[in-house]
Amino acid sequence: MMRVDEAIERLLQASHLRVETERTGLENAVGRVLADDLVSPLDVPPADNSAMDGYAFRHADWPGPDGELPLSQRITAGSVPGALSAASAARIFTGAETPPGADTVVMQEHCEETAQGVRILQRPAPGANIRRRGQDVRQGQVVLRRGHRLRPQDVGLAASLGLAELPVYRRLKVATIATGDELAEPGEKARPGQIYNSNRYLMHAQLSAWGFEVVDLGVARDTFDAVEAVMRQAAASADFIVTSGGVSVGEEDHVKGVVARLGALDLWKIAVKPGKPFAFGHVQGTPFIGLPGNPVSVFVTLLVIARGCLFASQGAADTRVRAVAGRAAFSRRETSREEYIRVRSTASGLELYSNQSSGALFSTCWSDGLVRQPSGMAIEEGDTVEYLPFQAFL
Amino acid sequence: MMRVDEAIERLLQASHLRVETERTGLENAVGRVLADDLVSPLDVPPADNSAMDGYAFRHADWPGPDGELPLSQRITAGSVPGALSAASAARIFTGAETPPGADTVVMQEHCEETAQGVRILQRPAPGANIRRRGQDVRQGQVVLRRGHRLRPQDVGLAASLGLAELPVYRRLKVATIATGDELAEPGEKARPGQIYNSNRYLMHAQLSAWGFEVVDLGVARDTFDAVEAVMRQAAASADFIVTSGGVSVGEEDHVKGVVARLGALDLWKIAVKPGKPFAFGHVQGTPFIGLPGNPVSVFVTLLVIARGCLFASQGAADTRVRAVAGRAAFSRRETSREEYIRVRSTASGLELYSNQSSGALFSTCWSDGLVRQPSGMAIEEGDTVEYLPFQAFL
Repeated sequence: MMRVDEAIERLLQASHLRVETERTGLENAVGRVLADDLVSPLDVPPADNSAMDGYAFRHADWPGPDGELPLSQRITAGSVPGALSAASAARIFTGAETPPGADTVVMQEHCEETAQGVRILQRPAPGANIRRRGQDVRQGQVVLRRGHRLRPQDVGLAASLGLAELPVYRRLKVATIATGDELAEPGEKARPGQIYNSNRYLMHAQLSAWGFEVVDLGVARDTFDAVEAVMRQAAASADFIVTSGGVSVGEEDHVKGVVARLGALDLWKIAVKPGKPFAFGHVQGTPFIGLPGNPVSVFVTLLVIARGCLFASQGAADTRVRAVAGRAAFSRRETSREEYIRVRSTASGLELYSNQSSGALFSTCWSDGLVRQPSGMAIEEGDTVEYLPFQAFL
Repeated sequence: MMRVDEAIERLLQASHLRVETERTGLENAVGRVLADDLVSPLDVPPADNSAMDGYAFRHADWPGPDGELPLSQRITAGSVPGALSAASAARIFTGAETPPGADTVVMQEHCEETAQGVRILQRPAPGANIRRRGQDVRQGQVVLRRGHRLRPQDVGLAASLGLAELPVYRRLKVATIATGDELAEPGEKARPGQIYNSNRYLMHAQLSAWGFEVVDLGVARDTFDAVEAVMRQAAASADFIVTSGGVSVGEEDHVKGVVARLGALDLWKIAVKPGKPFAFGHVQGTPFIGLPGNPVSVFVTLLVIARGCLFASQGAADTRVRAVAGRAAFSRRETSREEYIRVRSTASGLELYSNQSSGALFSTCWSDGLVRQPSGMAIEEGDTVEYLPFQAFL
């Protein structure tokens, strides 16, 4: 059996960028992947400016706590100051440019306005309360790297640099196909023997949440011709194909036969629970991942194994998921496969969901994350374990 | 000054549900807030079924490892089995219903098919490899609570229960207004004295990422009449109003005057850095939050202080953000206000961004989270600190 880290690594090795560059407005940029280094076209702030509401003056001009400086100008944010007259002070507000000649700002709380001007009761250090030009970002500085997935603050930064559009990779189109003749669709009445299709909606929801464009090709009916037709459609309309079900070695299923016929197919047994059977290959050059059929296996393998490969195909530079340390509030025997256990974080530690069956999708809803239990390693209550909150996979 | 936890608590106390219920299809459900408890209409699985590809039989019928059982039927997933004939076995596949009369499934790896039937080489325990009806979810069970924010796995679960639509709260409409006469818009050429508007885009990006419907009312020009007009528009078109800038006590700004005139205004000084000045109130009954003006203050107060109140207004039941323990790779003096320091997680611990100024938005882009430094408490390198990855705020 293949180790989990080996499977992830092999998928990453085989991945490459599948999408072109386009430009997007700031209002649609969150979650998109930068297609180029973002280089600042300007200094931020663009000029020395006041960090406070107060008075700008020349430090050497301070007349002592009892002396006064006449007020020579009033500078609000957005206005352009004149040079500071000798031995005077300028009323200034937060964000306003400091006038040429002033080297210090004193906050208004340390001053007293008088009929003649302003009394500076406490002398600040020279240069105090001035934000220097380029202090935040310098012109020419690379502020974000190609392959970075844009967060709200990154969009704010781009705006602060005057950029209204950003170069991003087109959204990866992921075609999804669920297999299984026993599947009824939600909203229909299930006939005896049928179960409701959850994988189709689970894949759609997770892939959409990741920002991919999902091409939902529904359920493949179990004939070679039907599967071949939908696979050709998937290869023609998407950048990536993800299926659920039908990848166990013993299973009768046309997906495997069609993929092998139209492209190439590797069937892996990954030493992971849930999720042992896993397929990888391509259909007429379009990469293909075949997830297992049980809903929890679909969910876990999508998060733990397929995610990195999909994000790499989308152009993302860093696809790692960071575990945090947690305290196990449960004990568990060692197992031969690496397990991804559904847990919930509580005041007393990470609690285990009672039913860890790969069919019990409710376990993933009850939980707020996974604990990775390495193969051959028991967990005792109180142990420090690797906890992967579901949010870490976003 | 008001403590951070007190500010959060006061906002939560004053919050109440601002939106009606609607129904959404599964494909648009992620991120939405459930408006009703989700009760399962059925048992999952709906009938006893096989967890394996193998053979279903009556445990008492086992003829020993050398004996054989004739194969009386073949049951694939989705088909309806007949009752099991006496002293026979049924070929069965994963997910297929077990036939009445069979109480055990043996995996195919432990069997050998013969000309006459099947030899069961290893006798499993009675009841083995059968998933019982209702084992995952029972009919009538509350699987998700009102106020839960739907994740991909929750959508998968709803599908598995046959539900094509879910009752959710309408998206909260949040009107945003940036203030400041010094602001140029990205894509324009900034005149001398101007800086680019980042708060408008930062607020839009963060509020959209949270699933709110943003009503972007742009920048309020600094006259009483202009501000009054935009505030009336905000109150009429949105469920919540968020502004940036102009809430310091000393600042000249019409937002405060207009809010006080049209509704009610509280100006708070919160013992937090960045983000001390903060306003709360309402405009003609529509709740109002006035964030500070510096971009980092906007970002931090939006995440740490405003977020819970906004989500409570959206109907979310649990608005807490969970910190994780991290190791400080830096030292920092104690301060009088609680600080939210921008840090990056590395192999040697949490590293501090060099410029923690509230004007330096780049600090939030360099970082992957915040460290909460309580007031009056120094941090020494190696200390365990409260780390809030940005993903925890999603």
